[in-house]
Amino acid sequence: MTAEQVARAAREASNVLQTITSAQKSAVLKRIKEVLVERRDAIVAANRADKEAAQKEVEAGRLSASLCARLDIEGAGGEKYATLLQGVDDVDAIPDPVGQVTMARRLDDNLDLYRVVCPVGVCLVIFEARPEVVVNIACLAIKSGNAAILKGGKEASRTNQELAAAIQHAIATTPATPGAQTVFPERAVQVVSTRDEINSLLDMDRYVDLVIPRGSSSLVRHIRDNTRIPVLGHADGICSTYLDASADVAKAVHTVVDAKTNYPAACNATETLLVHASVVDSVFVPVAKALLAAGVRIHADERSLQAIEAAGVAQDALQLVSAATDGDFGHEYSDMEIAVRVVDSLDAAIDHINAHGSKHTDAIITEDRASADWFMRRVDASGVYWNASTRFADGFRYGFGTEIGVSTNKTHARGPAGLEGLTIYKYRLFGNGQGAGDFGVGPGKHSFLHEDIALDDEVRNRFVL
Amino acid sequence: MTAEQVARAAREASNVLQTITSAQKSAVLKRIKEVLVERRDAIVAANRADKEAAQKEVEAGRLSASLCARLDIEGAGGEKYATLLQGVDDVDAIPDPVGQVTMARRLDDNLDLYRVVCPVGVCLVIFEARPEVVVNIACLAIKSGNAAILKGGKEASRTNQELAAAIQHAIATTPATPGAQTVFPERAVQVVSTRDEINSLLDMDRYVDLVIPRGSSSLVRHIRDNTRIPVLGHADGICSTYLDASADVAKAVHTVVDAKTNYPAACNATETLLVHASVVDSVFVPVAKALLAAGVRIHADERSLQAIEAAGVAQDALQLVSAATDGDFGHEYSDMEIAVRVVDSLDAAIDHINAHGSKHTDAIITEDRASADWFMRRVDASGVYWNASTRFADGFRYGFGTEIGVSTNKTHARGPAGLEGLTIYKYRLFGNGQGAGDFGVGPGKHSFLHEDIALDDEVRNRFVL
Repeated sequence: MTAEQVARAAREASNVLQTITSAQKSAVLKRIKEVLVERRDAIVAANRADKEAAQKEVEAGRLSASLCARLDIEGAGGEKYATLLQGVDDVDAIPDPVGQVTMARRLDDNLDLYRVVCPVGVCLVIFEARPEVVVNIACLAIKSGNAAILKGGKEASRTNQELAAAIQHAIATTPATPGAQTVFPERAVQVVSTRDEINSLLDMDRYVDLVIPRGSSSLVRHIRDNTRIPVLGHADGICSTYLDASADVAKAVHTVVDAKTNYPAACNATETLLVHASVVDSVFVPVAKALLAAGVRIHADERSLQAIEAAGVAQDALQLVSAATDGDFGHEYSDMEIAVRVVDSLDAAIDHINAHGSKHTDAIITEDRASADWFMRRVDASGVYWNASTRFADGFRYGFGTEIGVSTNKTHARGPAGLEGLTIYKYRLFGNGQGAGDFGVGPGKHSFLHEDIALDDEVRNRFVL
Repeated sequence: MTAEQVARAAREASNVLQTITSAQKSAVLKRIKEVLVERRDAIVAANRADKEAAQKEVEAGRLSASLCARLDIEGAGGEKYATLLQGVDDVDAIPDPVGQVTMARRLDDNLDLYRVVCPVGVCLVIFEARPEVVVNIACLAIKSGNAAILKGGKEASRTNQELAAAIQHAIATTPATPGAQTVFPERAVQVVSTRDEINSLLDMDRYVDLVIPRGSSSLVRHIRDNTRIPVLGHADGICSTYLDASADVAKAVHTVVDAKTNYPAACNATETLLVHASVVDSVFVPVAKALLAAGVRIHADERSLQAIEAAGVAQDALQLVSAATDGDFGHEYSDMEIAVRVVDSLDAAIDHINAHGSKHTDAIITEDRASADWFMRRVDASGVYWNASTRFADGFRYGFGTEIGVSTNKTHARGPAGLEGLTIYKYRLFGNGQGAGDFGVGPGKHSFLHEDIALDDEVRNRFVL
């Protein structure tokens, strides 16, 4: 199939998905889990072939060991495969957002307007390495009534093909749901495998409604620069933590060490530490010592460097400290490294973040409520935290059950995006033959009532299938 | 100022606007109205100069008379200026969305998450002709806490400059609000005047968060094709009305005539009429006669053409009827013209709309609830109407008080977009020193509570300034 045929099939599947019931979605998800259990041996065999090929690339120096590690779908004791299966159940358990009424208004007698949640439509998801994303995104797309076109990394191509085949087989063999008017479309989930197909699809705003890239910042940037289609995601995760003039030392040490070392490769790890000049010795030095003890390299600006040197840090720890350059601020280390800058005021910290950050997640450590409030209002980021690690920016930790990704966009979905990121709404208007010319000033003309209709459970769920 | 300086100033203004109170916004809006009254003579004089220059262009055949007419800001009896002033009051009266809590969740004891509405940030608004848009958009931006960069058509440049100067003067001379921590930024509203500046600004996704084009489809398309910044709006308004097998004749005649003739140049006017084959004679012919009587040109497909010819329509009316070509479907006449196609089923009508429409607004005329429901689910458009004219797709008619435009996007804001289209949210997390590593399995580890916090009035308004 050409990329255009794939896109057109996805659009047709999307049209059909508009009349699929929640029960049908649930039946498909349950069947997907069954097929993933039935076909486990074949999927694992494909995954081993991918891993062996990748291992040769690592040995030849053409692939990083960490990327190779992310290919694995089994886990040493099978725990990664168990997590993948559990993920299908988790998505099945999320309430179905489609059909929910979020606004209802009587415009006039017999002229009622409802704003109803519906799927975005056709989503193109592009990811690297981790093949379990195929299953995760396919399930989220099914739950939200979207058609999905998936493109994984070439290193995982055998695994991705097996997983996609399993999902399509599951859709085709799901028992019919009694009373359903529509057959679940098999082409709701499709996989493409070449970069050429992606470049073609990025040009098809006629068929594709949303692009979700999950991978390196260069991947995300390339996609943003080459499509008119809305892109949901983030290129960079340059998160900062600011130690305010009234920061508590123990809270500062605990949150900063967690934010840097809990999972340094994550997008929500803190990359920059800002320090109010008045607490360099009292708060920053203990934080620095804890970071050094944890093995974190510190790129320190002049004032913070002096403070570390004056604090009598052991010589071997001092070897982890170097002078920061401008390039260190606004850099995503994704590793056990952190940049430090001393600032003279709360506003200087905010200005630094708004200038160098990536609008992802930023934290203030302070005992002063007014400072925290000012910081949380003025910092332009999807997450603004008071006395908490930036590592909490995550759909699971927020209680969304799952996430399609973390968005640094300023429109549609921001921050860790759950199913809401895959839905939008349409307006349904129920009349009995009215025209706009019936309203206005003059004999026989109507005036708009514009009365809100209360969203009780019956109204809210009136259009849920 | 260079375009980059304008964009940077807007971004700085946007940062400051995050801590502006509702009372301050209201004071600025009231002052804008005062200054527009005070400076009326100067504004009207500038507008007359624009109109005179435009009239010469019309006489030279370089400008359309309708565009020239839209330049006028006074109205014959001053009623257009009065509407402009009333519009400022209307925006002032809308509830301020900023600071509202839309989700609250306890992640753990002393770890509370709030999703809080905030401004999108910096909006670039590009429009043609109608200078009152300067005032309307400036007021909406102020109300929602956004910084706005405005670019109007060159025909209205004198008027736009006077209006922008009045708004900036109003901001600068608004009396201080007692207790406000922040001075309202004068650069919250800026105007640029050249196409070169726009091309530069469209490249500044670092500073600009949203582009709102209001004008011709070629303008909107040009912008979409030349920016990475999200674009809110619509290029085309290709709305359809479908006369179903069980359409009521009177409702069909009334809604179709309204949808076509009430304001043919509007984006929500019906451009295509689809007719179920079983009601060509019984329903379509009366509709066609009414359209012809109103002076509408009909581009009819083969079956509808035969029906009109067989119906004994008067010869002079018949001159308004011609054979449709493929190009007539998916064409926005914006005039007293309509394309007609006979289809053999409800699904064929839906397929036609999904293939040829612009996802704006589409209506079904039917007495069959099941057909209406199927149509409203399966048609992919911002508005799906049952027995009502497509002309209702409008922010005022929906009761939004005002609108920033009608969006055919599938993300962020869809349909007539009010202030919601200019807002997004951020997550505020309130901790007391927690790290992500405190949660998990093992001794001393916490589990997430994920308890919803009820959105009573106190919680909902906790962060409103």
